[in-house]
Amino acid sequence: MMAESTAGSKRIVQEGIAPMEIIHGGDLDAARAAFPGAPEPWIDLSTGINPWPYPLPPIPAEAWARLPGRSAETALRVAAAACYGVPSPDHVAAAGGSQALIQLLPRLRRPGTVAVLGPTYAEHAAGWTKAGHRVAEVESLDACDAEVVVIVNPNNPDGRIVPPERLLALAERQASRGGWLVVDEAFAEVAPECSVASQAGWSGLVVLRSFGKFFGLAGVRLGFLIGGLPLVREVRAAVGPWAVSGPALAVATAALSDSAWIAANRHRLAAAAARFDARLAGAGLRVAGGTSLFRLIDDPQAAGLCNALGRAGVLVRRFDHRPNWLRFGLPTNRAAEDRVMVACETFKI
Amino acid sequence: MMAESTAGSKRIVQEGIAPMEIIHGGDLDAARAAFPGAPEPWIDLSTGINPWPYPLPPIPAEAWARLPGRSAETALRVAAAACYGVPSPDHVAAAGGSQALIQLLPRLRRPGTVAVLGPTYAEHAAGWTKAGHRVAEVESLDACDAEVVVIVNPNNPDGRIVPPERLLALAERQASRGGWLVVDEAFAEVAPECSVASQAGWSGLVVLRSFGKFFGLAGVRLGFLIGGLPLVREVRAAVGPWAVSGPALAVATAALSDSAWIAANRHRLAAAAARFDARLAGAGLRVAGGTSLFRLIDDPQAAGLCNALGRAGVLVRRFDHRPNWLRFGLPTNRAAEDRVMVACETFKI
Repeated sequence: MMAESTAGSKRIVQEGIAPMEIIHGGDLDAARAAFPGAPEPWIDLSTGINPWPYPLPPIPAEAWARLPGRSAETALRVAAAACYGVPSPDHVAAAGGSQALIQLLPRLRRPGTVAVLGPTYAEHAAGWTKAGHRVAEVESLDACDAEVVVIVNPNNPDGRIVPPERLLALAERQASRGGWLVVDEAFAEVAPECSVASQAGWSGLVVLRSFGKFFGLAGVRLGFLIGGLPLVREVRAAVGPWAVSGPALAVATAALSDSAWIAANRHRLAAAAARFDARLAGAGLRVAGGTSLFRLIDDPQAAGLCNALGRAGVLVRRFDHRPNWLRFGLPTNRAAEDRVMVACETFKI
Repeated sequence: MMAESTAGSKRIVQEGIAPMEIIHGGDLDAARAAFPGAPEPWIDLSTGINPWPYPLPPIPAEAWARLPGRSAETALRVAAAACYGVPSPDHVAAAGGSQALIQLLPRLRRPGTVAVLGPTYAEHAAGWTKAGHRVAEVESLDACDAEVVVIVNPNNPDGRIVPPERLLALAERQASRGGWLVVDEAFAEVAPECSVASQAGWSGLVVLRSFGKFFGLAGVRLGFLIGGLPLVREVRAAVGPWAVSGPALAVATAALSDSAWIAANRHRLAAAAARFDARLAGAGLRVAGGTSLFRLIDDPQAAGLCNALGRAGVLVRRFDHRPNWLRFGLPTNRAAEDRVMVACETFKI
């Protein structure tokens, strides 16, 4: 992972204006339009989603037909609390994706100051800005001086990890000023030692978790907020009854409880990432950071490489403000990895 | 259906305070706790959901694994627009349930006055109240004098229908004062002649549609807002990317396009409702209104009947403020209908 930046610079990314549309990974439609001659099927490495999904358990017909019952929603929150090390399901709220929570959270505080430790997932700054807050993207933890501080941990895309003890100290400081520390742990399943979810009962500390990334089921749409009781109650009221679909409840309750699968896939992803790193290095590409769900390349020729990969039917994630960066998800199999590497090696020659 | 009330009374149900928790149908857990000796399996007639669900089409693995793509979301909105008679998918926003839209809509206007034509689905008044609006529940169309007017059409639970021409006239009046007419058409599939969805491009007219009720797939969590372009854009931004799950996109795009199934099930539900009415009448129960997805009984002994049904393992919907009312969904088969009728007839003797 990348070392935390020591630069103290502070950049206002947006203030009081609606953000432009944010580019996300996973948009194969746009990729096909940009590279009409690329071979099919495309290899999509543009997201940080586990390419080996949790095997779907049988989904009872009732989960589709009926309104999701309270007991099913409670069972999900119990499973999530156990999986994330949270003492009680009362500290857990479920919603239709962590994105939904990223959009909701800024509306639950009156407009104030927000510091987002960047560069990171752009929806955080956009959400707070849209709700009328004054948002600064800052590049060091020391510059995180605002009523609300947002840290993605491990960070997307560079994998930067802020140690839990520093987060907890910051949360305490935030609480003492009536503020929040929001920690987005969307990728923390592959770095469980960095999670502070078990501490999120503290006022001031709010943790977000994503179901779809580690379990490879992003289409299910499920995310969690973990926090103090008043905030969790407020979030549950705001998302309303039946915010999570019946199939999502059935699949995720099984997945979050499957500690054997979780351990095995943590291992599998770490091994796959290490193997992929070695091949990237062999092609002269420097891995600057990431998690075992995605790898970040830092290369002055990144833009050209991105196009070469596009012509080869490989979609990776580029970053407008960091032209030297490319983020790669993990190829699913050897054939896909070979196609990626051929494109990289041919470009680099 | 019940004739529109001509009473001009106007009752303030809530003003500026958070509502108590609203009781909904479908809570079998609570029913089992209240009637521990009731036979299993319970017959749940407490919701207005089609008991004969749309048959699930094959759902590709990608719909679960990947983030829902833009083209899939567009295809859903195209299918919804065609199904609801809306000229363009640009007038359609999709969300994870019409409940999510009921919770969102009040936050898109600065607090003002709201009239809800009641009695009706309680979440409307609750949502507007929670967002700081001054809400009055009114009992006649003539009393609908507010910046925002909310009408469920056909109404739940009494089936009251406000004719489209009256709705359109009211929408025009609302538009001229910068207001909205919100028409919740959650049950309009079984009364398509009363829908104003095709006119919702007008400023002032906002229509909500529910996927799960008519298609019998309430667990899927999908609803639509149909309105003018600026509002639809705002709603789409507020729900954010990937608000609808991949499986929901796959299932609903197929279902909304299946006009043969839609026509056949409209017919099937109407026939089943008529047959059920005859049996209820035979047991001395007066059907006071409803749609072909639910029937409303008006009986001074409703509370006792509700308990008798509970002891027989049949859950129906009661209404705190209308003790004489009970709402029945349709029994799925003859055996279930017989169990319901035995309980009714035994109680009435």
